Amino acid sequence: MYKCDVKRMDDKIKTFSKFGDAGHGGITRYSLSPEAHMARDEFVKRMKAIGATIESDDMANVYATIPGTDPKAQRIVMASHCDSVRNGGNYDGILGVMGGMEVLETVVAENIPHKHPLTAMIWTNEEGSLYPPAMFVSGIVCNDSLPEAIAKNFKEENLMNSKSVLDKTTTFGEMLAKSPYKGDKKNRFNKDDYKAMFELHIEQGPILEDNGNEVGVVQCVLGMFNYRIKFKGFSAHAGTFPMNKRHDALFAAAQALVYLHAEIDKLGRPELVYTTGEMVCLPNVHTVIPNYVDFSIDVRHEDPKVLEAVMNIIKTLPEKTWAGCTCEIAEQWKRDTVYFDKKLVGLVDESAKELGLAYQPINSGAGHDAQFASYVVPTTMIFVRSKAGLSHCEEEYSSPEDCTAGASVMLNAVLKLDAE
Amino acid sequence: MYKCDVKRMDDKIKTFSKFGDAGHGGITRYSLSPEAHMARDEFVKRMKAIGATIESDDMANVYATIPGTDPKAQRIVMASHCDSVRNGGNYDGILGVMGGMEVLETVVAENIPHKHPLTAMIWTNEEGSLYPPAMFVSGIVCNDSLPEAIAKNFKEENLMNSKSVLDKTTTFGEMLAKSPYKGDKKNRFNKDDYKAMFELHIEQGPILEDNGNEVGVVQCVLGMFNYRIKFKGFSAHAGTFPMNKRHDALFAAAQALVYLHAEIDKLGRPELVYTTGEMVCLPNVHTVIPNYVDFSIDVRHEDPKVLEAVMNIIKTLPEKTWAGCTCEIAEQWKRDTVYFDKKLVGLVDESAKELGLAYQPINSGAGHDAQFASYVVPTTMIFVRSKAGLSHCEEEYSSPEDCTAGASVMLNAVLKLDAE
Repeated sequence: MYKCDVKRMDDKIKTFSKFGDAGHGGITRYSLSPEAHMARDEFVKRMKAIGATIESDDMANVYATIPGTDPKAQRIVMASHCDSVRNGGNYDGILGVMGGMEVLETVVAENIPHKHPLTAMIWTNEEGSLYPPAMFVSGIVCNDSLPEAIAKNFKEENLMNSKSVLDKTTTFGEMLAKSPYKGDKKNRFNKDDYKAMFELHIEQGPILEDNGNEVGVVQCVLGMFNYRIKFKGFSAHAGTFPMNKRHDALFAAAQALVYLHAEIDKLGRPELVYTTGEMVCLPNVHTVIPNYVDFSIDVRHEDPKVLEAVMNIIKTLPEKTWAGCTCEIAEQWKRDTVYFDKKLVGLVDESAKELGLAYQPINSGAGHDAQFASYVVPTTMIFVRSKAGLSHCEEEYSSPEDCTAGASVMLNAVLKLDAE
Repeated sequence: MYKCDVKRMDDKIKTFSKFGDAGHGGITRYSLSPEAHMARDEFVKRMKAIGATIESDDMANVYATIPGTDPKAQRIVMASHCDSVRNGGNYDGILGVMGGMEVLETVVAENIPHKHPLTAMIWTNEEGSLYPPAMFVSGIVCNDSLPEAIAKNFKEENLMNSKSVLDKTTTFGEMLAKSPYKGDKKNRFNKDDYKAMFELHIEQGPILEDNGNEVGVVQCVLGMFNYRIKFKGFSAHAGTFPMNKRHDALFAAAQALVYLHAEIDKLGRPELVYTTGEMVCLPNVHTVIPNYVDFSIDVRHEDPKVLEAVMNIIKTLPEKTWAGCTCEIAEQWKRDTVYFDKKLVGLVDESAKELGLAYQPINSGAGHDAQFASYVVPTTMIFVRSKAGLSHCEEEYSSPEDCTAGASVMLNAVLKLDAE
């Protein structure tokens, strides 16, 4: 079994953590920002140093490739993203990029024989934190292979107009046109030139840590749906309008939120996750009774029957009475569980076992570029233990040892696939 | 009994409704805006037309005075404001200004004898909708007479720096310095030169309408308090973090809000009003569990014992368990019930009765400049029926007949006081 190098990995972690360093342990590294270009520069510098060939495509995705012994063989790609959420951590996304680099560096340093070209890759704009939506560029590049219900949300011609959430003006297309990494469309990841994709990522949850495991063998990305639940009442003055005549949309929403928790919990599915993360309250003035409140509900589970049971609870809301307000529900999006390639999952499992690591099968509750790539070529993911399960925050942490263990699993799984 | 003129009043209503007309039935007329100056210009034009003397003070309050037969007598002032909330209606505030004008116009037109000088007045920035807080200028002008707990929130040196809620930059002081109505501090409303203040206002609630009454004889402004209730949990990813490990601040807040309604309603006080009008949810992203939520609670009742009972319920919140989150409460402000001058209230009551109007005693749930003025000179208010109780919105409406009836009540009450 080959192993990646902890010192080299740790040096990469420390180096990449500087690009977008927000000054208190984490980073803000928006897609197509100067910081994201600094990360690409570092990637290119280190990959050129080991003799890799650098390419970029029209979406500013960057590819570093070392040749294999078979000039006709398809590439095996190891890819993730280098952009972050605002005040995010030093691991989400970039770990998968550093993992791909580490695998190539190990292969070159130890002169490991392999038939297929091996590619480390950076996907542009996975987070969608400056230019929504998330998985923006993999959604465009993989568009022809995606189910239509998903593909329609990632049409290139529409997404080029996605506006910065900060200045509400600059578009993704404008920034892309200015990127020094904008290359040729023919270089895009595709089903003809690529044999498989691997993505190393932090778990972003506490399951591996709670079970004392270093790495997770990812089986699937959970199916999910997202609804918006909207309450309309009417506003009146806080001091002058009697309680019994009010139609208070915030009280309505609070009651419905408590009801949803109670009803969903009755399903008795501890592995189900549901989240009301966003709430809008209008006019949101302390002396005015709210006339409109809505909140999001994001629900995730592997089994479509469980998702349907939750959806049926949500669908009862408009029939009920909520503080005299009307209730409307609107489906925002929905996706089925995406199972990763069984053979690749098996190779990851074997590699973790043979490396003597503490590991387990795990599902991904979060979305990743790998889930779109999996519609194009056989794809899978490897998770690394997250401290306290924290992610999308500056406290996000995975040890250099765990990160390197994840890269070693990827290295060996890639070599197993290469050897077939 | 003297009566004001419906046609003249209706003409004023239609004219003033143009200054800040937002195009769909209501107005946006921020304090010190061009629209607020247009309203002052109209006030001055009409008051000059009846021979009134115009003065303004250093706060851009404007006064129009007609002399009485006794040159040494103090002034009787009828005052309200001409600024509005954003997308407000055509009555809140400006009715009291038009009512004062109408009284002066009637006195002049009908040559009604009176000893005291009679003044119609515009207070600057009652709403505080562009430059908070509400009752901004009356808080400054009456500051020396206010209880210290209130006075400290209205110190002139602090409020001059109040920033525009729109551009977050321009201060009230800067705009005031540019106002063509900025005059001399010596012209301020004060206890030596003024005998009494009357304020005509719309009810802003549904009580008069529900009881079939045209006008209300205001007894007091309800005591109130405002708390902020804050929940802290921690954020994690919506898809990756198990339900049983979450500390969801929005779920905590929703439970607490439902609990508060249940407990407060148990007090069995139908005349008590309480409102959770404002909610902040952070980070407010649909894929992230909220780590911080707070909401306001505004509670109003005449009886301090009832307010205390509600406060005691609120004070139990931090001791309870709310979805694993901590709960903190913070008092924002508090004021006692302000009773209007008994003699003036009696004169208003007599006038309404003698005019043959349908009327009733009523309390004010909203704050008004009159409540601060009442610490300086004997003060009272007259309410006019509001359609459906709506206010601070474009649907706000009171008929020209009701508005004129309210002005007639004020006219006769002023004359009764004058004759004493």
